[in-house]
Amino acid sequence: MTEQYPSQLLERTVSDFAKLPGIGRKTALRFALHLLNQDKEAVRGFGERLIQFREEIKFCEQCHNISDTAVCDICANPKRDHSIVCVVENIRNVMAIENTGQFHGVYHVLGGLISPIDGIGPNQLAIPSLVERVRSGQVQEVIFALSPTMEGDTTNFYLSRQIGDAEVQLSTLARGISIGDELEYADEVTLGRSIVNRVAFQR
Amino acid sequence: MTEQYPSQLLERTVSDFAKLPGIGRKTALRFALHLLNQDKEAVRGFGERLIQFREEIKFCEQCHNISDTAVCDICANPKRDHSIVCVVENIRNVMAIENTGQFHGVYHVLGGLISPIDGIGPNQLAIPSLVERVRSGQVQEVIFALSPTMEGDTTNFYLSRQIGDAEVQLSTLARGISIGDELEYADEVTLGRSIVNRVAFQR
Repeated sequence: MTEQYPSQLLERTVSDFAKLPGIGRKTALRFALHLLNQDKEAVRGFGERLIQFREEIKFCEQCHNISDTAVCDICANPKRDHSIVCVVENIRNVMAIENTGQFHGVYHVLGGLISPIDGIGPNQLAIPSLVERVRSGQVQEVIFALSPTMEGDTTNFYLSRQIGDAEVQLSTLARGISIGDELEYADEVTLGRSIVNRVAFQR
Repeated sequence: MTEQYPSQLLERTVSDFAKLPGIGRKTALRFALHLLNQDKEAVRGFGERLIQFREEIKFCEQCHNISDTAVCDICANPKRDHSIVCVVENIRNVMAIENTGQFHGVYHVLGGLISPIDGIGPNQLAIPSLVERVRSGQVQEVIFALSPTMEGDTTNFYLSRQIGDAEVQLSTLARGISIGDELEYADEVTLGRSIVNRVAFQR
């Protein structure tokens, strides 16, 4: 059943909102009617900022993270350790790791993972620039911080082959039982790996 | 914990999206990153339509429904029965009733319900224009299609007093067991009313 909208202006904006991920036409209608209750100036600002965001956003020349400038704040920060490069799939992963406050190196955003099923090959990802960075000689360690999925493992494997003979340390994130998790609810693979890769107890 | 955004342009747009009803900052970030994957032209169009929607939308002079023109399509339609006015709380209610295809009269959108708790009195609602319409002599029936809540009942009562001596028929939506509902799960009040207001069986 197609909804009937009392206004084409409304219908257009509902259609626009309904293109956002996870948003159906009912929620899109709520958004549109919500904006009708806002000042015209506020909605104008929203629209203008949206356009400006898309047109002016940049991707860092070095790590491909989202940035307002040609080189992002992390890459431009002399206090960060530029000899440790953490390879991640996307911008959200950078934000997640930054929010832990535990990493003081720099990043490399691939923009995806190798996935033959989805037709994503190494050439569509920021892999050549990573290899170049690694071979420049300034990098001592590369951390693979990709998802523990088939695509993540494939990408790890491909990257390690590409980096191959460069004299850098390669590492991956520790896998194991999440902190706070009940042991009996951990999946078998994770539990198995956490036994094989057990660490010395701190007493 | 406050998230750290790699870009102020991104953060601004996340904040804008997070003002939409029911949207948190995580979902807002998903929206913003989704738009980064779209063409600049598409995002420019989205922003421009949003501004145009807010600035050019009108409310019908007669029924206060949302409209692209001074008088909405329903009020301007000579095939609709202008002697039957269905009083609703908001625009969504108009759409819901229109989608049933069962009503051929016209509407009157109050823009809310009387709610002393929320400080909403009759003067903030489109009540005077309803009384004027009814007293004009062209209206034969007024249907109160408000929610069966305390606010809805209060508003019904107030409206019936205001319309008072005008010679029009007043009616409300039928209340009862929803079609397809199991009897044992219906609430007591609804079930009780459906017995008191039982209708002749069609055989």
